[in-house]
Amino acid sequence: MLSDTIWLRAVVESALKEDIGTGDITSMLTVPEQAVSRAVISVREDGVIAGMDAAEMAFSVVDPHVRFERIVSDGDRVSRGQALAVVEGRSRSLLAGERIALNFLQRLSGIATKTAYFVSLVEGTKAKVVDTRKTTPGLRALEKYAVRVGGGYNHRFGLYDGVLIKDNHIIAAGGVRNAVTAAKAGAPHTLKVEVEVRTLDELTEALDSGADAVLLDNMDIETMRQAVEITAGRAVLEASGGVNEQTIADIAATGVDLISVGALTHSVKSLDIGLDFEK
Amino acid sequence: MLSDTIWLRAVVESALKEDIGTGDITSMLTVPEQAVSRAVISVREDGVIAGMDAAEMAFSVVDPHVRFERIVSDGDRVSRGQALAVVEGRSRSLLAGERIALNFLQRLSGIATKTAYFVSLVEGTKAKVVDTRKTTPGLRALEKYAVRVGGGYNHRFGLYDGVLIKDNHIIAAGGVRNAVTAAKAGAPHTLKVEVEVRTLDELTEALDSGADAVLLDNMDIETMRQAVEITAGRAVLEASGGVNEQTIADIAATGVDLISVGALTHSVKSLDIGLDFEK
Amino acid sequence: MLSDTIWLRAVVESALKEDIGTGDITSMLTVPEQAVSRAVISVREDGVIAGMDAAEMAFSVVDPHVRFERIVSDGDRVSRGQALAVVEGRSRSLLAGERIALNFLQRLSGIATKTAYFVSLVEGTKAKVVDTRKTTPGLRALEKYAVRVGGGYNHRFGLYDGVLIKDNHIIAAGGVRNAVTAAKAGAPHTLKVEVEVRTLDELTEALDSGADAVLLDNMDIETMRQAVEITAGRAVLEASGGVNEQTIADIAATGVDLISVGALTHSVKSLDIGLDFEK
Amino acid sequence: MLSDTIWLRAVVESALKEDIGTGDITSMLTVPEQAVSRAVISVREDGVIAGMDAAEMAFSVVDPHVRFERIVSDGDRVSRGQALAVVEGRSRSLLAGERIALNFLQRLSGIATKTAYFVSLVEGTKAKVVDTRKTTPGLRALEKYAVRVGGGYNHRFGLYDGVLIKDNHIIAAGGVRNAVTAAKAGAPHTLKVEVEVRTLDELTEALDSGADAVLLDNMDIETMRQAVEITAGRAVLEASGGVNEQTIADIAATGVDLISVGALTHSVKSLDIGLDFEK
Amino acid sequence: MLSDTIWLRAVVESALKEDIGTGDITSMLTVPEQAVSRAVISVREDGVIAGMDAAEMAFSVVDPHVRFERIVSDGDRVSRGQALAVVEGRSRSLLAGERIALNFLQRLSGIATKTAYFVSLVEGTKAKVVDTRKTTPGLRALEKYAVRVGGGYNHRFGLYDGVLIKDNHIIAAGGVRNAVTAAKAGAPHTLKVEVEVRTLDELTEALDSGADAVLLDNMDIETMRQAVEITAGRAVLEASGGVNEQTIADIAATGVDLISVGALTHSVKSLDIGLDFEK
Amino acid sequence: MLSDTIWLRAVVESALKEDIGTGDITSMLTVPEQAVSRAVISVREDGVIAGMDAAEMAFSVVDPHVRFERIVSDGDRVSRGQALAVVEGRSRSLLAGERIALNFLQRLSGIATKTAYFVSLVEGTKAKVVDTRKTTPGLRALEKYAVRVGGGYNHRFGLYDGVLIKDNHIIAAGGVRNAVTAAKAGAPHTLKVEVEVRTLDELTEALDSGADAVLLDNMDIETMRQAVEITAGRAVLEASGGVNEQTIADIAATGVDLISVGALTHSVKSLDIGLDFEK
Repeated sequence: MLSDTIWLRAVVESALKEDIGTGDITSMLTVPEQAVSRAVISVREDGVIAGMDAAEMAFSVVDPHVRFERIVSDGDRVSRGQALAVVEGRSRSLLAGERIALNFLQRLSGIATKTAYFVSLVEGTKAKVVDTRKTTPGLRALEKYAVRVGGGYNHRFGLYDGVLIKDNHIIAAGGVRNAVTAAKAGAPHTLKVEVEVRTLDELTEALDSGADAVLLDNMDIETMRQAVEITAGRAVLEASGGVNEQTIADIAATGVDLISVGALTHSVKSLDIGLDFEK
Repeated sequence: MLSDTIWLRAVVESALKEDIGTGDITSMLTVPEQAVSRAVISVREDGVIAGMDAAEMAFSVVDPHVRFERIVSDGDRVSRGQALAVVEGRSRSLLAGERIALNFLQRLSGIATKTAYFVSLVEGTKAKVVDTRKTTPGLRALEKYAVRVGGGYNHRFGLYDGVLIKDNHIIAAGGVRNAVTAAKAGAPHTLKVEVEVRTLDELTEALDSGADAVLLDNMDIETMRQAVEITAGRAVLEASGGVNEQTIADIAATGVDLISVGALTHSVKSLDIGLDFEK
Repeated sequence: MLSDTIWLRAVVESALKEDIGTGDITSMLTVPEQAVSRAVISVREDGVIAGMDAAEMAFSVVDPHVRFERIVSDGDRVSRGQALAVVEGRSRSLLAGERIALNFLQRLSGIATKTAYFVSLVEGTKAKVVDTRKTTPGLRALEKYAVRVGGGYNHRFGLYDGVLIKDNHIIAAGGVRNAVTAAKAGAPHTLKVEVEVRTLDELTEALDSGADAVLLDNMDIETMRQAVEITAGRAVLEASGGVNEQTIADIAATGVDLISVGALTHSVKSLDIGLDFEK
Repeated sequence: MLSDTIWLRAVVESALKEDIGTGDITSMLTVPEQAVSRAVISVREDGVIAGMDAAEMAFSVVDPHVRFERIVSDGDRVSRGQALAVVEGRSRSLLAGERIALNFLQRLSGIATKTAYFVSLVEGTKAKVVDTRKTTPGLRALEKYAVRVGGGYNHRFGLYDGVLIKDNHIIAAGGVRNAVTAAKAGAPHTLKVEVEVRTLDELTEALDSGADAVLLDNMDIETMRQAVEITAGRAVLEASGGVNEQTIADIAATGVDLISVGALTHSVKSLDIGLDFEK
Repeated sequence: MLSDTIWLRAVVESALKEDIGTGDITSMLTVPEQAVSRAVISVREDGVIAGMDAAEMAFSVVDPHVRFERIVSDGDRVSRGQALAVVEGRSRSLLAGERIALNFLQRLSGIATKTAYFVSLVEGTKAKVVDTRKTTPGLRALEKYAVRVGGGYNHRFGLYDGVLIKDNHIIAAGGVRNAVTAAKAGAPHTLKVEVEVRTLDELTEALDSGADAVLLDNMDIETMRQAVEITAGRAVLEASGGVNEQTIADIAATGVDLISVGALTHSVKSLDIGLDFEK
Repeated sequence: MLSDTIWLRAVVESALKEDIGTGDITSMLTVPEQAVSRAVISVREDGVIAGMDAAEMAFSVVDPHVRFERIVSDGDRVSRGQALAVVEGRSRSLLAGERIALNFLQRLSGIATKTAYFVSLVEGTKAKVVDTRKTTPGLRALEKYAVRVGGGYNHRFGLYDGVLIKDNHIIAAGGVRNAVTAAKAGAPHTLKVEVEVRTLDELTEALDSGADAVLLDNMDIETMRQAVEITAGRAVLEASGGVNEQTIADIAATGVDLISVGALTHSVKSLDIGLDFEK
């Protein structure tokens, strides 16, 4: 969770070390040690904000005396030009924290904005938009948080907290039935069993073996519709593959429960956000 | 450097821990412990490859006995469908390393591919395409490596290894002249001094104060052309702001030395790459 | 998993640092640097072995040239006096690794032995013996591994990979129904929802709200039997509280699916194991 | 020391990360973010308390705003039902810290209670009860603290801060005399030299070689009595091996100075302690 | 920077762990837990002070309640007997922090004092005294800070933030011209290129190839003088090798811009500083 | 111990990270990736060598394929010009490891050389030369190792492995007798008790209270001689304060057992050692 300050602090500290290294030479050379400034963080295009905690943390790690006053909160929709926060303190501290604060805020807001857009496209259906494990190494918890902020839902966090039998497992296990049966028998009683299928035959096999959820991999719209009919509520259905802004509404209309979208986290356009000193 | 295995190992290990946590439950339940597999990593769209070391490292951290045979190298242009590597070993090890190997490879290849495209657009000019500090927290060294693989050049790595006086510094320092003069006087003799300017007047002020390089911030094409003329080789000129695939050729044609592009790293579309077990 | 060498190496290294600190003074003073020895690790009471990987790792971290030859494997039942492994190498290396190797092996074998005993007491019923989160700080993955070696099953690994609504949650949520309904609505589709109940009324409430599993907290045998009847397979039933070697058979006979036993990990008698140099 | 907050914080943080991982799903789903609660930690059997600092730290790491009010202190004897502390704050914070607070408190109090019991059995003699290096990996400093709280004494903390020549050293060194002589000659002037012996002949050899302390390994009562007589105050005598609640009083009566008990830390029954929300 | 508290805290914490380990036994045995003391830190020989932040940090890491009142600041020249700071708090906390506070303060003040002395010897010339990479492993940032405090200047911080082509590079590159030309072509635009030369011929080669700075390695005074003449301001000149208190004034008189002195950090006499409890 | 490769690897890795950071730019620009070199490490003044393991480790961490062939061993006396080792491998790897390898080797050899010199000055007496806790933060174990290599002995490693009651403890404890009595009563049986005294009266008090060792603080030669007489073997005597190359022989002649010398580690002149590529 973004509110878990220990975890967040560790990630932000490590990003600051990467950027500041042995010191911000430019500020040391050009900005008097005691100078103080006031700066505004504002957004340069429309979007949904996520990552205010990370941005504030960046400044407070650099210098606990910096004052960070929020104008908006995570989840707020903002318009081009809108101020997000005011930051005040030693000028050198603001300059040292600026880039990292913005890097987190821009990336997470980019994810929230993209998620919110995909969510809006399936409005009126029962389909939930969910993320995948195609996240940036080291930032998974933050990126999955941003998906939630944008109105999406999280799939499992890693290999350890969910059972998802994918194509390669099925090959290694010798078929859908073998794999699902083994998983149902041995899985902890706290976890459901989901399996990926490519055809309606495999779907039937999965349902007969007791799968709790089925991922429909790269099926066309018509096949998905039949899958929903065949399943008839016996399992949760997740559509995956070939999901984009052109296709998602039609996919949702088939009646699937979940639509997973790797691009929410693997292909993100940062939201354009800047920090300007007041003169 | 990507070849620095200690650094790379640390980043990859931490990504694997994030993903695998207490263990890959699905594989434990469905794949026999002793089963072995052979899989092919292949690309599903055209692009430039970067990150083969990281991909190999992901498998070797999981299991040093996995064999990773490279078919292409970093920097190679590849076409849809082309095989990049063959991986062989315990099936569970392949499944545990797969996602992290692909996450690194897809992101870094996405950066290399985008960089190569921008570089191609300025071909025939003297302009170099350079990156920024708008990188993903924790992955800066890898992302800057991918920029180089794509034919781009690196700007400074952080606040510690270059002097770049930006707008906010100038406000805090009380003008371009003050800032550049102070920086020239105090900077280590190993570093050049670069300053950001918004107008031709500021440019003149910067040159007169002895700036080694000048960043032209958000200038239009005509102003940049004049800046090149005024400068007449007295300083390196870097264009920044509003750079995209529509504008970059014209910017390069003005005669600037460098064009910095934040989007190389802050707005990346992962290259589509998959891993398939052989049946 | 015990086979995950990176994780295991980190835990073992940290235990060795705790024990060896700035060096094994006694060996430096009394044992020639080049002396080599052969030692046997043997068990001094009957039990089930777990932790051979950790024991081997302890020696190989101290000195990669130590040869560790296994005679038994994790899961083997052994009798008083039986040799478990032979260790050969520099005498100082054996002395430096000895205590930590034994500390892991004794504790994990103690857990496996205790688990195996409880499992034997419910033989012939469908009840599985499961562990809890009452583990030693820092050793959870290893201790849960030892439970599996002893024939038990793992409950969730932490707060992050399973939904278990306990008494304190119910108080904070305002009742069983509220809590279960909220959890069913919001939980990731990969997780089941389990809830703790104290009475048959609460059980009915839980089942009506759609709980996937119900933990029967401190119920007497007769009430548990009724709970099984009422549930009639609609949910997994877990007995918890007051479980010991006197009561577990009767509890299993009620027809519950799972019996969780905190004492498997919170109150362990180490298995007596020693290492003796050959003269 | 338990009062060394940096060390303690590191151990507690790592235990919390192990338990909470990416977040407490159950609380997020069932407990409102702003809800606050008051809870009482109380003991469910008689014992001696140790670990209040660790318990408080667990909550304060999760959330510095949680108020932890102590009713008892480390070292206090408590009776079944007695309240140990009152905890107040955000309900989610209490639920996230609960298990780890209790795991530390239960284990350390278990050790203090067991130690106090053994100490009571030797009352009236000069024998001190001391611990061993058979501690839980990662928790040695805390466990040795709990032994002191229970009225016991600490043997060395590791291989680095004491000279104890054991059976395997003697084999490698070629006899008691060789080993003791070498150790006396080379040991730092800040350390005493202790040696393990199995017979009265070895004891004489040890005393003649100038050992400061002698560990009597697995001797019967009568032999120990003779050992005390032979030694006549020339060295500190430590009894070891076969020490349990049946034998310890007789051992103490022989006149030995120290009795070391591995079971104080390697075979601990956690003290039963719970945390209950007020309704 | 010394003011960067995160970095400083990490270094100081690790030094304290190295010294205190499992606890300050002597204080536990001899000083009452609640005793408080007042102590004065004073200097026992003349010098320049550096490291007050580190000294204060040592106490505040041990115990945040210790009050550390500064009498002097970094950069102050002090005379034998002068008080530097007053420290008040729990006696055990003062005793636990004392040695580490002094170790930092003595070493850094030793460096500042030595640097100030060398700087005084070149007064009246334009030569700056600069440091090298011959620093103590782990303390580079602190030691380079102390050089600045003493009036010296920093050369690059490591291999990553400056281009310095040394003798071994030149051998590997096949001559001065090759090396400089390649470096000028490929170096980031933020960095200057410095090259080491041994003869006036190599100097000419370096200048012709466009080197921004030239390190004159082990040249005699007369050759250096000619080097200054030949260079005529076309590059920054750094004298290196054979610099000591006998030679530095003559070297400075040749007109070089920089004189680098490895001994500033690799051969330091700690400044004698003590801490005395008030009776 | 220097042979403890895990500890050593951690220290060396951290020094390399400090120096190499994001990469050795100069080598990347001027030295071909595949170039290989052979270099000789040789000493430029007489001395005693310590730190060959650290030097070798520096190269092997950078690149496991570098071959490091030793010509001398730790403890060898060497003369100006003598070769210590030959290093072969990729030129870039040699250049990346060179400085750190030398920094360790120069500093540790400097300590060993200084120690050997002091040891030679007390030859023929029974006095041992011992070190103090005035070591470089982070390098204590290595520096104390170098003292042993030079023929010196180690005092305690930190506050945790020895009892040394110093002046400030005595003030806080209310006198020598109080302090020693408390320490003798409570110290673990593995540790001796040493106390610092300033006068012969305090010495008598210390001996009467049963001190095992006494540190004579800043006494003149005559007083020390009397101290030896008074003590008459009842305790180990350590001379401390005002020890230098002029005074140490006279101090040794008084008959004290130990002479501790802070300057062995706090004021070290690095031994001049270089690395030269073969042409």
